Amino acid sequence: MSEGFAQTPGPPYYAVIFSSRRTAVDDGYGAMADAMVELASTQPGFLGVESTRGADGFGITISYWSSEAAISAWKANAQHRVAQAGGNRKWYAHFETRVARVERAYSGPR
Amino acid sequence: MSEGFAQTPGPPYYAVIFSSRRTAVDDGYGAMADAMVELASTQPGFLGVESTRGADGFGITISYWSSEAAISAWKANAQHRVAQAGGNRKWYAHFETRVARVERAYSGPR
Repeated sequence: MSEGFAQTPGPPYYAVIFSSRRTAVDDGYGAMADAMVELASTQPGFLGVESTRGADGFGITISYWSSEAAISAWKANAQHRVAQAGGNRKWYAHFETRVARVERAYSGPR
Repeated sequence: MSEGFAQTPGPPYYAVIFSSRRTAVDDGYGAMADAMVELASTQPGFLGVESTRGADGFGITISYWSSEAAISAWKANAQHRVAQAGGNRKWYAHFETRVARVERAYSGPR
């Protein structure tokens, strides 16, 4: 339907909430971020992703998954681990990752 | 610590993930959004909030709460209901609300 929204099934499912503040370092960030979304979307159990970043450099990306096992497999993916290393080393000033079980969902306007 | 991040306690706790696309209508949106963050922060069980919106109009706001009961009470808050009505009527082209239980969390860079 509307651009930007993940088309998730009915709950329960899982969300990986990744809140981050970027450094000033570019060095391939945009290409890597795009590649990771593309790669994630091919993984077993991937349900969708929503992502936004404001002009102040603070951003939130939420990926949705069918199970905790799917999340663990994605975290351990070799190409994803390379991206994670870049994130730790140069791209993120700070980040918080929260793994959550979606229990209820609804949409609007109603 | 870093600006923009919610300082949440150790899990478990709850997250209300509000993903939205704005209409072109302003009509007090910014002031109402700011007032709702301020009001939410005074509610029992409120743990923090993270919010960002990109230049394309797609945004994510996540509020964190100690319990589902705290979320229900906030949803029913009279001033919040006025804001919700405005959101349904004029401010949001589309939104998705997901209530999730945060089970694990970690931060970085490491």
